[in-house]
Amino acid sequence: MKINQAIEIVEPHLTKKRFEHTLRVADTAVDLAEKYNASKEKANLAAVFHDYCKYLPLPEMERWIKNSILPKDLLLYHHELWHGPVASLLIEREHGINDLDIKQAIYYHTTGRANMTKLEMIIFLADYIEPGRSFPGVEEVREWAEKDLIQACRMASRNTIQYLMSKNATIYPDTFYAYNDLTKRLDGGNK
Amino acid sequence: MKINQAIEIVEPHLTKKRFEHTLRVADTAVDLAEKYNASKEKANLAAVFHDYCKYLPLPEMERWIKNSILPKDLLLYHHELWHGPVASLLIEREHGINDLDIKQAIYYHTTGRANMTKLEMIIFLADYIEPGRSFPGVEEVREWAEKDLIQACRMASRNTIQYLMSKNATIYPDTFYAYNDLTKRLDGGNK
Repeated sequence: MKINQAIEIVEPHLTKKRFEHTLRVADTAVDLAEKYNASKEKANLAAVFHDYCKYLPLPEMERWIKNSILPKDLLLYHHELWHGPVASLLIEREHGINDLDIKQAIYYHTTGRANMTKLEMIIFLADYIEPGRSFPGVEEVREWAEKDLIQACRMASRNTIQYLMSKNATIYPDTFYAYNDLTKRLDGGNK
Repeated sequence: MKINQAIEIVEPHLTKKRFEHTLRVADTAVDLAEKYNASKEKANLAAVFHDYCKYLPLPEMERWIKNSILPKDLLLYHHELWHGPVASLLIEREHGINDLDIKQAIYYHTTGRANMTKLEMIIFLADYIEPGRSFPGVEEVREWAEKDLIQACRMASRNTIQYLMSKNATIYPDTFYAYNDLTKRLDGGNK
């Protein structure tokens, strides 16, 4: 799919603010793909579609989760975690995008997981550091993104877990597995 | 087993400092058992034995983990996590203590886990708040321990995860499952 066609498909599903965020994620993802030797085309397309289902009504997302191969435990966690997995289904069903690399990058962009691929890390990170983001710690992650993809992703995942715990929120297991796995990749953990 | 006999068994295996910590954990555990309607005898015995294997040589602990029903993934994480599970084996093997409640409280005193029993929470918490402890946040956990066992344990587990992440350490999955489960018990999580 051509990128302009993808943008045309996605735009009507997003608020103006969310659409602009999406374009910034795409720019950031292409830069990261260039820097870390990944496919810029895939990074661009995955980024454009990453929030495709952000505003799908909750009962509809719930139905997709219940009636598909998606893991049912998603329903036990915050609905903010649903739109990535659901989008990974719907971009194929509605628009024929069946590239597994792209689908997985969209699926895991919110939580991460253990053993993330390079493209998964790029979308996860681009979503976290795009220039419109301004939460505490983002600047340090941006600096690491220039030098070390894994370190930057580990910091983003750690910051996310710490933020959720400061709110006494539950943590989806994949989020935590991402942190552990990235930490092990960096220094073998603390053993 | 009489408590004096247990103390006599444990003392030679510990440093003086660790032995004094153990006695304070036991006092604290008995207080918590009284407050939360658990067996004071079991709390006392579990506390006295909780650090029984703290100074077992690492290769010996490693051998026990490899050649028993203990989960092998312990070996992929920090050896500080080994002494509880190993002690839960050795107190039965060497001293005939086969009370499952006590064995599990000792097993999980460092990490916690999902679905902790009351006695498990008491030992986990007593180890965290005994009066010799002075790390950041302990006072708030002590205050909660007066009012709400689950809330106090959730805060202790959250503080532990945050401390480990501040050192970029990996987190043993049970530690994280304890946090999620206690959070769900308190308020259904953030769904």
